[in-house]
Amino acid sequence: MRMAKIISFRDRALESKDAIELLSSKWRITVLHILRDGPLRTSEIQCAINEVSPKVLTQTLRGMERDGLIDRQIFSVVPPRVEYALTNMGRSLIKPLQELCHWAKAHVTERDQARSRFDLAARDKPMRRGDGRGGWRSS
Amino acid sequence: MRMAKIISFRDRALESKDAIELLSSKWRITVLHILRDGPLRTSEIQCAINEVSPKVLTQTLRGMERDGLIDRQIFSVVPPRVEYALTNMGRSLIKPLQELCHWAKAHVTERDQARSRFDLAARDKPMRRGDGRGGWRSS
Repeated sequence: MRMAKIISFRDRALESKDAIELLSSKWRITVLHILRDGPLRTSEIQCAINEVSPKVLTQTLRGMERDGLIDRQIFSVVPPRVEYALTNMGRSLIKPLQELCHWAKAHVTERDQARSRFDLAARDKPMRRGDGRGGWRSS
Repeated sequence: MRMAKIISFRDRALESKDAIELLSSKWRITVLHILRDGPLRTSEIQCAINEVSPKVLTQTLRGMERDGLIDRQIFSVVPPRVEYALTNMGRSLIKPLQELCHWAKAHVTERDQARSRFDLAARDKPMRRGDGRGGWRSS
């Protein structure tokens, strides 16, 4: 492989670095999604995403606040109320994220079919991996 | 919080589930990105993403193959050559992913500024968290 080719691959890999970091926690997509219509309390977010542990949710919210995606507001009432809302930057991420969600939703059946094919072929591994015929499998 | 509200939040959280699963490994975005121009050998992919361990790369490629995003081709030469290429489904994911990458790239400075503000405020925590004034911070 020529050095120029390697460098261009590395450049391309780097291009996606910020997007990867942005979604460093898988819960970020969900939090952005559920804050779309307005501020919510921590307990409401926790209630909506009940698979996430309180500890991981706190880390997620803190990381998102640090990255400028959400704002945290404390209301001086007894007991204190804490709410989170999207910042302008967070709001601007909704559109590209929704397109990704739409894509994923539209391709669920195709993905499930691919998984079934893969799992079936894996059970019959010698045939699949070593048939020596080459050629792309279903694309 | 009313039950209807909770259910609508849960629905919204579920809407993002497929997208989250799709990007279950952070390296998937990068692999899709570097396969954009055509098939590559495992060694070339490894060379482009040198931060990923061979083990994790293999798991990533296997998961993506299982989900129908990439195809694996074995050429019966000595030594055997293995290449990966995007499937039609994988190719159709490039556009929404690129929009996400563009968004991330366009907001790097804003994110870094937000981080600096956050870290500065965290150093002076009592002022920030407990000033009792309420109100959104910078959005």
